[in-house]
Amino acid sequence: MSQATPSRDALGILQKDSQRLVDYFKQILSRYADAPARLMESIEYSLMAGGKRLRPALVLECCRACGGDGQSQTSALASAAAMELIHTFSLVHDDLPAMDNDDLRRGRPTNHKVFGDAMAILAGDAMTTMAFQILATDAAAHVVGALVQELASASGPEGMIGGQVLDMEGENVSLSLEQLQRLHRMKTGALLKASCRMGALAAGATAAQLAAVSDYGRHLGLAFQIVDDVLDVTSTPQQMGKATGKDAAKGKNTYPVLMGLDPSRREAAVQLQAGIQSLASFGASADGLRALARFVVEREN
Amino acid sequence: MSQATPSRDALGILQKDSQRLVDYFKQILSRYADAPARLMESIEYSLMAGGKRLRPALVLECCRACGGDGQSQTSALASAAAMELIHTFSLVHDDLPAMDNDDLRRGRPTNHKVFGDAMAILAGDAMTTMAFQILATDAAAHVVGALVQELASASGPEGMIGGQVLDMEGENVSLSLEQLQRLHRMKTGALLKASCRMGALAAGATAAQLAAVSDYGRHLGLAFQIVDDVLDVTSTPQQMGKATGKDAAKGKNTYPVLMGLDPSRREAAVQLQAGIQSLASFGASADGLRALARFVVEREN
Repeated sequence: MSQATPSRDALGILQKDSQRLVDYFKQILSRYADAPARLMESIEYSLMAGGKRLRPALVLECCRACGGDGQSQTSALASAAAMELIHTFSLVHDDLPAMDNDDLRRGRPTNHKVFGDAMAILAGDAMTTMAFQILATDAAAHVVGALVQELASASGPEGMIGGQVLDMEGENVSLSLEQLQRLHRMKTGALLKASCRMGALAAGATAAQLAAVSDYGRHLGLAFQIVDDVLDVTSTPQQMGKATGKDAAKGKNTYPVLMGLDPSRREAAVQLQAGIQSLASFGASADGLRALARFVVEREN
Repeated sequence: MSQATPSRDALGILQKDSQRLVDYFKQILSRYADAPARLMESIEYSLMAGGKRLRPALVLECCRACGGDGQSQTSALASAAAMELIHTFSLVHDDLPAMDNDDLRRGRPTNHKVFGDAMAILAGDAMTTMAFQILATDAAAHVVGALVQELASASGPEGMIGGQVLDMEGENVSLSLEQLQRLHRMKTGALLKASCRMGALAAGATAAQLAAVSDYGRHLGLAFQIVDDVLDVTSTPQQMGKATGKDAAKGKNTYPVLMGLDPSRREAAVQLQAGIQSLASFGASADGLRALARFVVEREN
């Protein structure tokens, strides 16, 4: 288990996995030759805008950690793409004027600023259906059902979308720490944990492996959100590629607001250690996951 | 093959299938006990608002026509619910101010008029994920992949959502009949045809049966849209439960505009006959489908 230069390791992993994903996305987009060109441009605009691609990397690294073979890697790549499509659709809809009304995302104008509100809504809708289509067509037949179930349940009313509703309802309302944790477990945590689980499912993981990466994903998800909240206070828009200081402006509940900045940072570190601890039964095959966890807490954007 | 009182037969089928679906929806909605209450209210509001429920009936009747047994009927019911969720999500998003900006749907205020634009967007998003989740959890394992693929492909960039983009781009632009047919084949036809195919897939249909119900669904889809366009000209909002005359007001391309009213009606009748002809190899098991086809053309709302 390498402890040296974790962020550099993580960046290497993110870069390599991201390149695999981008190549695969190009191939996927080319399958929709009969779709309206402007719709596909809008989808491509947001899908190819970069970003850290943390979720796909978690899928691929969890598959590796669980010893996935060649066929498993194909299912994992399909899962990684499906996950990134769902994540991207949620950003496109979240940025809409009716929602967070953001102009900037990943350093570029948001989808609706370029393509209009109607097209942004439809592009988001289309990305969702594409995510499930990829699983059905590209993942191995015996894992399709489990992968669809995992992705759908993590995205839906008890997952990401439910969390967005809680986030909206929580504006200018004081939440308890417990309520805030529920919100984040759903809004951000569900997809991060599902990314880990889908990688394991693709690999045909044992129940013990699946439980371990689920725990890892849960702690990572919490750490991720705490750090996100902290960065919204301490970073500049240039660093983040999106507006900052928005949480306070919108009266959103955050860890820094509820706990203070330094206790938030300490809690992120606690979650990081717990996440790494979850991987104790894995050997060197989980070094990538350990590096990614440290990256999540140490990142500056 | 009963020719008597087709509409009455169809109404009986629609009513019976609709009741089965509503009971099932109640059970499905109860599974999301941990979701935000207001989100589930918004979803239930649109899902339980009635409507003809033609698509679910097509799924169930195609499964019957192909000789589906008990387990097949369970997969078909899951498919019917998934299909209605996708159809309903598309209506909720289509009614948004950024899209068609409609105030009335199925005789009631549209979702966003009651729950706000943000919640309507999220409710639509959630319905999509729920659709795929139901297939993964409730359909028989050996057909999940095919059903997910069918639903996703019919809904996505080359299906319904792509058709909505063409519809939007076609406003105040003159389309050829061929372009209009492509638009409708995607916007409305894809889901209607997929409803038929999912019923057949659930039943474990032969290739010949699947091809026959696909043809039936294709003709039915075209007939449905022609009649929809005609009714937008000839009906009142009271009859339709939604605004009428909107196509002309928005400069939309329709069959009556391109062909005239009477030729449109004749074309619908031609499609009806072709649809029924596609079922020639089926016996009395397809009587329900024949009745539904006649209903689609003879309906007054």
